[in-house]
Amino acid sequence: MAAPKDFLEFVDANADLFIQRLGEAVAIPSVSGDPSHRQDVLKMSNWLNAQLQALGVDTKQVDLGTQELEGQTLQLPPAVLGSIGKDPKKKTILIYGHFDVQPAQLSDGWDTEPFTLVVDDASGKLIGRGSTDDKGPILGWLNVLQYHHKHGKELPVNLKFCFEGMEESGSEGLDDLVIRESKPGGYFEGVDCVCISDNYWLNTRTPALTYGLRGVVYYAIHVTGPARDLHSGAFGRTVHEPMTDLIALMNKLVDGKGNILIPGVDDMVAAADAEERKLYEQLDYSIADVEEAAGGKIALSDDKVQVLMGRMRLPSLSLHGIEGAFSGVGAKTVIPSKVAGKFSIRLVPPQTPENITPLVNKYIEEEFAKLGTKSQVRIEYLHGGRPWVANVKHWNYEAAIKATEAVYKRKPDLMREGGSIPVTLTFAESLGVNVLLLPMGRGDDGAHSTNEKLDRSNFIEGTKLLGSYLYEVAALS
Amino acid sequence: MAAPKDFLEFVDANADLFIQRLGEAVAIPSVSGDPSHRQDVLKMSNWLNAQLQALGVDTKQVDLGTQELEGQTLQLPPAVLGSIGKDPKKKTILIYGHFDVQPAQLSDGWDTEPFTLVVDDASGKLIGRGSTDDKGPILGWLNVLQYHHKHGKELPVNLKFCFEGMEESGSEGLDDLVIRESKPGGYFEGVDCVCISDNYWLNTRTPALTYGLRGVVYYAIHVTGPARDLHSGAFGRTVHEPMTDLIALMNKLVDGKGNILIPGVDDMVAAADAEERKLYEQLDYSIADVEEAAGGKIALSDDKVQVLMGRMRLPSLSLHGIEGAFSGVGAKTVIPSKVAGKFSIRLVPPQTPENITPLVNKYIEEEFAKLGTKSQVRIEYLHGGRPWVANVKHWNYEAAIKATEAVYKRKPDLMREGGSIPVTLTFAESLGVNVLLLPMGRGDDGAHSTNEKLDRSNFIEGTKLLGSYLYEVAALS
Ligand SMILES: [Zn+2]
Ligand SMILES: [Zn+2]
Ligand SMILES: [Zn+2]
Ligand SMILES: [Zn+2]
Repeated sequence: MAAPKDFLEFVDANADLFIQRLGEAVAIPSVSGDPSHRQDVLKMSNWLNAQLQALGVDTKQVDLGTQELEGQTLQLPPAVLGSIGKDPKKKTILIYGHFDVQPAQLSDGWDTEPFTLVVDDASGKLIGRGSTDDKGPILGWLNVLQYHHKHGKELPVNLKFCFEGMEESGSEGLDDLVIRESKPGGYFEGVDCVCISDNYWLNTRTPALTYGLRGVVYYAIHVTGPARDLHSGAFGRTVHEPMTDLIALMNKLVDGKGNILIPGVDDMVAAADAEERKLYEQLDYSIADVEEAAGGKIALSDDKVQVLMGRMRLPSLSLHGIEGAFSGVGAKTVIPSKVAGKFSIRLVPPQTPENITPLVNKYIEEEFAKLGTKSQVRIEYLHGGRPWVANVKHWNYEAAIKATEAVYKRKPDLMREGGSIPVTLTFAESLGVNVLLLPMGRGDDGAHSTNEKLDRSNFIEGTKLLGSYLYEVAALS
Repeated sequence: MAAPKDFLEFVDANADLFIQRLGEAVAIPSVSGDPSHRQDVLKMSNWLNAQLQALGVDTKQVDLGTQELEGQTLQLPPAVLGSIGKDPKKKTILIYGHFDVQPAQLSDGWDTEPFTLVVDDASGKLIGRGSTDDKGPILGWLNVLQYHHKHGKELPVNLKFCFEGMEESGSEGLDDLVIRESKPGGYFEGVDCVCISDNYWLNTRTPALTYGLRGVVYYAIHVTGPARDLHSGAFGRTVHEPMTDLIALMNKLVDGKGNILIPGVDDMVAAADAEERKLYEQLDYSIADVEEAAGGKIALSDDKVQVLMGRMRLPSLSLHGIEGAFSGVGAKTVIPSKVAGKFSIRLVPPQTPENITPLVNKYIEEEFAKLGTKSQVRIEYLHGGRPWVANVKHWNYEAAIKATEAVYKRKPDLMREGGSIPVTLTFAESLGVNVLLLPMGRGDDGAHSTNEKLDRSNFIEGTKLLGSYLYEVAALS
């Protein structure tokens, strides 16, 4: 069941009003990471709460307590929970979004005032902080609600909303809320699936659905030796130097082709079969796109499938740096006494921090023993998160694919992301239902950068996509 | 010819007066690296100039111009040149010392006020900034002059003095002065040898002479790839990562036993024969001394000779750190776009920056090519200095050995230092004469540290040593 023609026309007819409302949202500088803007995040919570209520949504603002930031005790911005429709014959979809934004100042290099939405008619861009991350997508949902509210039409599904104001600052307070409200009797009881619109197309051309995210484990290898930093003149070639040992260990972790040298880590992931390779062949993403994004002709392979699988369905190991060594400009003749090599591994199923960490520890300890050094080693686990992959055969994805085809007249890229969006895992694990990542913006939106933008067409067609998705879910039920 | 008994008795009888004068010198906080103390360094130059004049030395203070420091234009403290005796039948010895000191504050962890000389009768220590580095040795020379002045005795040799006030801040202006005054018609014309007292015994027990210093070459290996830092989630296993390549290169430079892996570098230095090994066996310095100084049981070898040769007569390669990588605390999931690995090699004859750099460049370029990466490499030479080894069979050393035996009743340790004292090379190369490093203080004096001290016995016996050395030089002429 496609969305009513009437709805699609309504969206086109009201495009300027929708953009005007996006301008109102962008004008509230709801920077969660800056204490001096905390009142603006609270204001944004109130603004969104009022908008939802005006469109017929039952809402509540949930106090998430306080946080300590830069020596101040700050109230966390209340999350906004909403509910509309309680028909037991309909599916219930939980929608997530965040109304806080990254910091932005004209002096960072913006061409225009970041908290004033600029509508550039020539390029079709809506420029402003939060336009694409994540106020545009949230307002897409308001647009959908507005059609139904104004015309007195029931939505084809029941909706629950969970909007937070701390996503750009670690989603403080959200996990507790989600876990609590996912329990029997909680606010999210009865949810059949989740839809999150907070990521981006692979490119600037083809709509996408995201069904996987890599997990991560982050370690520090501490190597210690002398009691204090030594002078390389007085001590060079008399003592075991921790840097020499650490560099030897770091060199054993990954090779220049990206292969992970820790036994068992790469092996844990089954090779892609012909059918899966085809998924990557079909993606509208080339090596040139990867290299343009990286800013250099530095792709690991000439095989597009290999490069895309490297990002989406293979683990990766990156060496980030060394704490405790000389890192300044110029020349300092120091033998550092304690150094910590930092590296992380991006994980894919069935890898988890729990099954990877023993392999890491065992290997580093064995390789360290081979060095025959008198230095000491200690491996520190800094943080980790599990990977996530959703079943794309689920009706939640089927509906999103159909909606994309209806609005954009083409199949979406079915993709996995190389990074993490922690809230995805929180919802998937707390509710135990299928989660869909349905991006509105394009790959070049510059979410955390200067001149963040959302294309007008992505906002308007994206609104149609979100509405159509609800009708397709209802049709597949 | 030993020093007159009269002289030795004079030194003992005037010990308290000498210490009192050292207290006057320490009380002038002549910190060359701190603009707010620059006037104190000038004051110290004047104080020393007046002392020398009062003891019959012809002096001149030489303006060395200005320097830019922390945004200020500062006058450099004038060097003090001195001359006493012009007898063409006598040898002429050039004495070097520096009257500036390292910074020091009670709050750094000093037990007593750093610019008040504390005479600790229980331990026999004279505690204060500059006591051993380098005001104690300079005042040793004043003590020697005082005996001769007071008793109207001629010195057994002609003396020239070169005292500077910028040694702790790179000896700014000194090289030009030394080179200029070493030329025919210059102030240092006719100098037969140089004596510098600005280093330390190997230990706390045995007097020492130093006849060698290692040189150094310092490099940065720049590896670049992406145009900007990348996120390891989005790009891990899609691109060549500069850190992976740099770590591989750094791992090829030195092994865990201290062997330098750059072909030709270790080979350039002939192995020690049995006679030379004996020199190291005889040194009053054990592996326990090395490990105590380093603060850990981390010596590269159980063979004392091997460890001492590693410091004194072998080249060494130390990995200092990486610029441009993540070096903070915590976990940052960055793929750095440009990294620079810093390392240096300590050089011994016949190694020079000129013959080592081509080997370094060739090897790194070859090893980089083997990596098969799309990153770029560039090797930067940051600075360098040649090694120095003096002929210990020269009468300058013979005299110092005899003087040591006369005063301390034992043979000195004949040692080489692992680090550099750049002014040594300047004198050796400008004048083309034998240079002797004749330390006054002990290995635990803490020259640049808190609670810097000079033992009372080292000051008093050291004064006798300096005087005796002049008489031994005269006797060998
Ligand atoms: Zn976001
Ligand atoms: Zn964001
Ligand atoms: Zn010194
Ligand atoms: Zn010094």
